Amino acid sequence: MGQTLTEKLLAEHLVEGELDTGEEIGIEIDQVLLQDTTGTMAWLQFEALGLDEVETEIAAQYCDHQSYQFDFRNTDDHAYLKSATGKFGAYFSRPGNGVCHQVHHERFARPGQTLLGSDSHTPTQGGIGMLSIGAGGLDVASAMGGSPYYLETPEVVNVRLTGDLPEWATGKDVVLELLRRLTVKGGVGKVFEYTGPGVETLPVSERCAIANMGTELGATSSVFPTDDVTREYMEKLGRPEDFTAVGPDPNATYDDRIEIDLSTVEPLVATPSMPDLVVPVSELAGEPVDQVIVGSCTNGAYEDLRAFCDTLGDEVVHEDVHAIVQPASKQASELLARDGTVAKTMAAGVNWSEATCGACCGVGHVPGSDSTSVRTFNRNFEGRSGISDDNVYLVSPQVAAAAAVEGAFVDPRDYGTDRGIDDPGYPEPDRFDGSNRDLIAPPEGDVELQKGPNIGTVPVNDELTDDVAGDVLLRVGDDVTTDHIMPASSDILMYRSNVAKIAEFTLTRIDESFPERALAADGGFVVAGENYGQGSSREHAALCPMYLGVDAVIAKSFARIHEANLVNFGLLPLTFADPDDYEALEAGNRLRLTGLRESIARDEDETELTVVDETTGEEIPVILDVTERERKYLLDGGRLAHVRASQ
Amino acid sequence: MGQTLTEKLLAEHLVEGELDTGEEIGIEIDQVLLQDTTGTMAWLQFEALGLDEVETEIAAQYCDHQSYQFDFRNTDDHAYLKSATGKFGAYFSRPGNGVCHQVHHERFARPGQTLLGSDSHTPTQGGIGMLSIGAGGLDVASAMGGSPYYLETPEVVNVRLTGDLPEWATGKDVVLELLRRLTVKGGVGKVFEYTGPGVETLPVSERCAIANMGTELGATSSVFPTDDVTREYMEKLGRPEDFTAVGPDPNATYDDRIEIDLSTVEPLVATPSMPDLVVPVSELAGEPVDQVIVGSCTNGAYEDLRAFCDTLGDEVVHEDVHAIVQPASKQASELLARDGTVAKTMAAGVNWSEATCGACCGVGHVPGSDSTSVRTFNRNFEGRSGISDDNVYLVSPQVAAAAAVEGAFVDPRDYGTDRGIDDPGYPEPDRFDGSNRDLIAPPEGDVELQKGPNIGTVPVNDELTDDVAGDVLLRVGDDVTTDHIMPASSDILMYRSNVAKIAEFTLTRIDESFPERALAADGGFVVAGENYGQGSSREHAALCPMYLGVDAVIAKSFARIHEANLVNFGLLPLTFADPDDYEALEAGNRLRLTGLRESIARDEDETELTVVDETTGEEIPVILDVTERERKYLLDGGRLAHVRASQ
Repeated sequence: MGQTLTEKLLAEHLVEGELDTGEEIGIEIDQVLLQDTTGTMAWLQFEALGLDEVETEIAAQYCDHQSYQFDFRNTDDHAYLKSATGKFGAYFSRPGNGVCHQVHHERFARPGQTLLGSDSHTPTQGGIGMLSIGAGGLDVASAMGGSPYYLETPEVVNVRLTGDLPEWATGKDVVLELLRRLTVKGGVGKVFEYTGPGVETLPVSERCAIANMGTELGATSSVFPTDDVTREYMEKLGRPEDFTAVGPDPNATYDDRIEIDLSTVEPLVATPSMPDLVVPVSELAGEPVDQVIVGSCTNGAYEDLRAFCDTLGDEVVHEDVHAIVQPASKQASELLARDGTVAKTMAAGVNWSEATCGACCGVGHVPGSDSTSVRTFNRNFEGRSGISDDNVYLVSPQVAAAAAVEGAFVDPRDYGTDRGIDDPGYPEPDRFDGSNRDLIAPPEGDVELQKGPNIGTVPVNDELTDDVAGDVLLRVGDDVTTDHIMPASSDILMYRSNVAKIAEFTLTRIDESFPERALAADGGFVVAGENYGQGSSREHAALCPMYLGVDAVIAKSFARIHEANLVNFGLLPLTFADPDDYEALEAGNRLRLTGLRESIARDEDETELTVVDETTGEEIPVILDVTERERKYLLDGGRLAHVRASQ
Repeated sequence: MGQTLTEKLLAEHLVEGELDTGEEIGIEIDQVLLQDTTGTMAWLQFEALGLDEVETEIAAQYCDHQSYQFDFRNTDDHAYLKSATGKFGAYFSRPGNGVCHQVHHERFARPGQTLLGSDSHTPTQGGIGMLSIGAGGLDVASAMGGSPYYLETPEVVNVRLTGDLPEWATGKDVVLELLRRLTVKGGVGKVFEYTGPGVETLPVSERCAIANMGTELGATSSVFPTDDVTREYMEKLGRPEDFTAVGPDPNATYDDRIEIDLSTVEPLVATPSMPDLVVPVSELAGEPVDQVIVGSCTNGAYEDLRAFCDTLGDEVVHEDVHAIVQPASKQASELLARDGTVAKTMAAGVNWSEATCGACCGVGHVPGSDSTSVRTFNRNFEGRSGISDDNVYLVSPQVAAAAAVEGAFVDPRDYGTDRGIDDPGYPEPDRFDGSNRDLIAPPEGDVELQKGPNIGTVPVNDELTDDVAGDVLLRVGDDVTTDHIMPASSDILMYRSNVAKIAEFTLTRIDESFPERALAADGGFVVAGENYGQGSSREHAALCPMYLGVDAVIAKSFARIHEANLVNFGLLPLTFADPDDYEALEAGNRLRLTGLRESIARDEDETELTVVDETTGEEIPVILDVTERERKYLLDGGRLAHVRASQ
């Protein structure tokens, strides 16, 4: 029986366990990336773990979320990150050099290797055949120190592509189509592996956009084979030697299969406020638009900006639209500045920002009240833009450009016809030969760590007690995102290195009183619906509830990275044996779990526990589905506590 | 006896009063400019005054301080400003189009005309012979409605320039030299009028930089004559018809005279944390630098950015420096993008921001803790950068570039010699022919005002009572700036349209408890040293103390715009008859003023009042030096209350 590409990549990096779906394995990590809002905690944990040198082939720290540096805490974070990379041996990418995934893609990503990143969109590099996975900062710090990365062997779903995209349809539309079909829960526990004759019709930028938004499907990763398209692309990157041919065996068998005929894909839009609320753009034609932003790790590459600019053509931005380009890499800006595109589009009314994640994580260009924002990003979770009740639509660069000119949604096919503008395709430059001045290799000699007053320490949980009792502090619905648990707008992000402070914002998007109540209660439960913790990899979404004293989250199901983060910080991720019991556990009910240490110490696939609801007298069966390794973490109070206890 | 240029410009616009130094006059205003953090309140006041159409030749609203829109309140402010300009008949400059003074300079400024701006650096246009004055928003709103602007006839000080600037010295260094000699109080009540053979050696950009920082001298305005240099410059702007020859009579007599031999000027630096703490850059050579920012209304023009880039030459930014260009106009970026300069300097490690005031008002790129920031701006007041205990140095673009490359302060003459780089001079383009896409003329037809939830109303003070009693709520020292009274960092600026909220930050840079105490006391006094309220034109520095219930400020002296703002909002600006009495009025002392209405109603040059200190029993003589017009405002509770009472 032939192997899938995913199996091959896993097998080549396997250091612990066996490749059986659902079983935990440990894999070797070749490369690591970190961004600034997760990186500070990761490096603090690297220190706290007693590590002193980066062991992976490549580790790179990017300053991308906070590149505008609205607060001195952001700037201090960057200074700490520069000092930590210098001391421990990682690359440092200066603020303004671009978004981690795009810059890593341009400079380091290699087919056939593994990449672990402290950002949920790390799978972007699946577009060039790299097995790339997002994880919490503690897992990334451990991997940097040479530890394997542990994950459950994923199901591998074959997405077979046939046909060829019609004019004005893009990779973004392909993944929006998948989201429409599968929803944001459709990829949990899975790797999406793309095959079929449609693959070779897609340039690398489109493959990466698709792999990037696999994260919105909840997938562990997404991966494309490499081919001549990849080879030529890596030559343009100036790294032909990094190309490797990778792909599945012809007779590989998959856990599931999805077919997409590319010729049937049309320009799509994810409507507010979930990436799977997808409709054809034609359904929205004529709806006025106030703001258009192009950028992000999904659609901020040279090819995306070029497509946006070419779709503008000789038209100009509508008087009522504020149009901003936030490039995903400075190289992209540099190339487009060099060939006159920046000057031309500035004249057309476009603003060019420093390269940044920016508005995608609510930092800068927050939409106004009752306004419509059209963005080429990957997430439109409610409030993520920085204003509650926002109306954020996710589109391709082509759809964004047409809306910027029209002042309203317009089907780009109609736009092209009406204005005599051709589909720009996916225009690559002859060479990606921008300067690499802002990516700094670690210097020779000793570097002193630089910690501003906001750089805190890593809190460590106590050992698990045998009995845990507390109230249901909060009950939330389905699909609660990490943006709900730990918002990411600029007024909050600046406290990412200071857990005591940032914990004050935990779950406040749902209930403003939560942090105060949780801290006062000193213990308790969060009850949740399906897919709890979807979205970002931010471990603060576990670290802060821990800091506030939360003992466990009882959910219908969890998002992968968030569940791992909960375990890493010693919180029990419990699932309902019967999802209908969700209704029974009302906020304020007093719950108790007993005999925990003995139960959790048992080496078994799943541990059944009983939650006694002391308010109603009901007994609710719940399941703890963790590995032997994770049981040790939980008993000791989390991964960091475990490492310390083992020393 | 011949007339000075200032007298001519005043005389040509005189509609009330006589041109006697110190006497109040009313002048007609030809053009008005507003920026976003003062503009919302100005337009709300325009509404509250019952005005319905802009009466000046030109009124232009710029969105420059908050162009990053890091909060929805900023974006809502911009939406309101767009709707107000559309409704009432002003130009709207979109966020990202640039800084009010620079864009106004490029598009509208005309020699021989008057300009009133709701920004303290409005005198920038003095560089091309325009009489341009900064004022509070209420005065600007009134002028837009056709009212005269009232001011005391200023002293006119002749700054006679001889010689020619040596290599690597600039207009910035000329005005820093003036600040070194005269201090930040040296220009109060004065207009600086530049003459002499040195004028024609200075290009327009340098004249404007000098006029711009006349504000830091405390001057009412600064003005240059026009000449062939101005004429050619206005041809390059594409507005040759706007040129007028203006200048003083040959036998004009001045109130005072200062001589500067340009050939003796060398590269200078204003050190932390006041623009008059000036030393030669050579004294700082070797001191490490962490951040370099080029931009602002002082040195953000094309010529400045060009000089910065040319000084970089083929060098690159030092690894330890974060170098950012924040252009003062999008046209400047566009021209530099067009000719390849943006691409080249990006490759050298420079970040190009959207055009904005940005870091100059503490919005973005806040320095890190214990770091050194070198900026081409005009103010380095403590904390203005967004972090207290900051170390901000003010320099020319040339000095900034040399520091960016060197990673430390370096005399640009040494830098040039060592690296074989020539003084770039003041390089103008052949034509300023960028697009004007982002400056939007008011549309035909009715426009509806758009007010987000943060857009408040204008509070109006009560009629003055005959007796005023209250505690000294706070006593502050000399040179307290409007940045102390009403800080301007991004976390506060977003409340500029919401007085009740932003009042919570009043004077908190000096005493965190002030707002709460003042509000609870419901009346009271602020006691201050010299030059109280220097800096910005922001009327919030008067409006918010009024909202908190402050009745009067007793100071050794006031900055001009702030004193006018106090009167506009019905607060008594009192000066000590004997400055030594400052020591007697300690915080907490109970003060009383009696018989106020009768005293203030008397038409006299100065009114002597007696403050009874009920705590010590002392009687302190103070002076109210206001005009007949201002007496009416004070009696009614401020200008807005007066207009309403008169209707």
